[in-house]
Amino acid sequence: MRILGIDPGIATVGFGVVDSIGSRQTLVSCGVVTTPAGTSLSSRLDRIYSDIEELIRLFNPEAVAIEELFFNTNITTGISVAQGRGVILLACYRAGVKIYEYTPLQVKQAVVGYGRAEKRQVIDLVRRLLHMEQAPKPDDAADALAIALCHARSFTSRLNLEGGQNPCSTI
Amino acid sequence: MRILGIDPGIATVGFGVVDSIGSRQTLVSCGVVTTPAGTSLSSRLDRIYSDIEELIRLFNPEAVAIEELFFNTNITTGISVAQGRGVILLACYRAGVKIYEYTPLQVKQAVVGYGRAEKRQVIDLVRRLLHMEQAPKPDDAADALAIALCHARSFTSRLNLEGGQNPCSTI
Repeated sequence: MRILGIDPGIATVGFGVVDSIGSRQTLVSCGVVTTPAGTSLSSRLDRIYSDIEELIRLFNPEAVAIEELFFNTNITTGISVAQGRGVILLACYRAGVKIYEYTPLQVKQAVVGYGRAEKRQVIDLVRRLLHMEQAPKPDDAADALAIALCHARSFTSRLNLEGGQNPCSTI
Repeated sequence: MRILGIDPGIATVGFGVVDSIGSRQTLVSCGVVTTPAGTSLSSRLDRIYSDIEELIRLFNPEAVAIEELFFNTNITTGISVAQGRGVILLACYRAGVKIYEYTPLQVKQAVVGYGRAEKRQVIDLVRRLLHMEQAPKPDDAADALAIALCHARSFTSRLNLEGGQNPCSTI
């Protein structure tokens, strides 16, 4: 199963593509979609939509895994990121790819085995699980890989435990 | 100038279409786009995107006026609304319509002349300014008309004051 993990944003959207066969995951690609600072919000949303369409066309994933949003501090940034997430979901839906969402806690739990893990621990585990020599960069790409791995590992473990029942909530 | 005012949301998106000639505004249409409860967020975003495209095709507005989002209380609802707003902006941008945004304070100031006006006062002023026998319903449609009127009146007054300089921030 090929999974496209997405870390939503407006200035930078992280993406990570992982192939998952049994309990083993391999890296296909990772990187970021960036939108130019100083351009209008609507043109940035347009760029994000087009680039997500292009990523789906290039990598043809069976599933998209995307992080749920939580904001306790900067609401203004949160509103921007949520607007970006809206067009990401639209692009995935229109491409006919199944969408799954995970909380940051679920991602840490699945990758590190500990929901309160530090960011550096998550990135290091992503590197080790995907047999990468160096940590994936930038951090948004590493986060996206962590989300893809979370889906791969949640999916696999639940398949084993529950005989094929889909554990994930389609959003 | 024909203006499409939009009150963003996920379950209900208000819209109001107003023609503005000089200092006079007339009602063209108003209503709501609704998305079915219990369906996935991504399918609701898809519905909103399609319906906004359709409204632009039907009414061919020169400008879209949309409310800025502020959330002090329910962040979860706020995230949903912001995701809806993202796809609304995308639909308007891709249709080539100029987008202007206003804060709730600016809308009240422009329609009622008082930034802390009550919701009922705003709706009553919308009714009177557009020479409607009854208050526009539902409230989301009335809010969208208020946003369209805000753009019409801000635009007109600034044109008079400043000799044609565009007072509005394109988003």
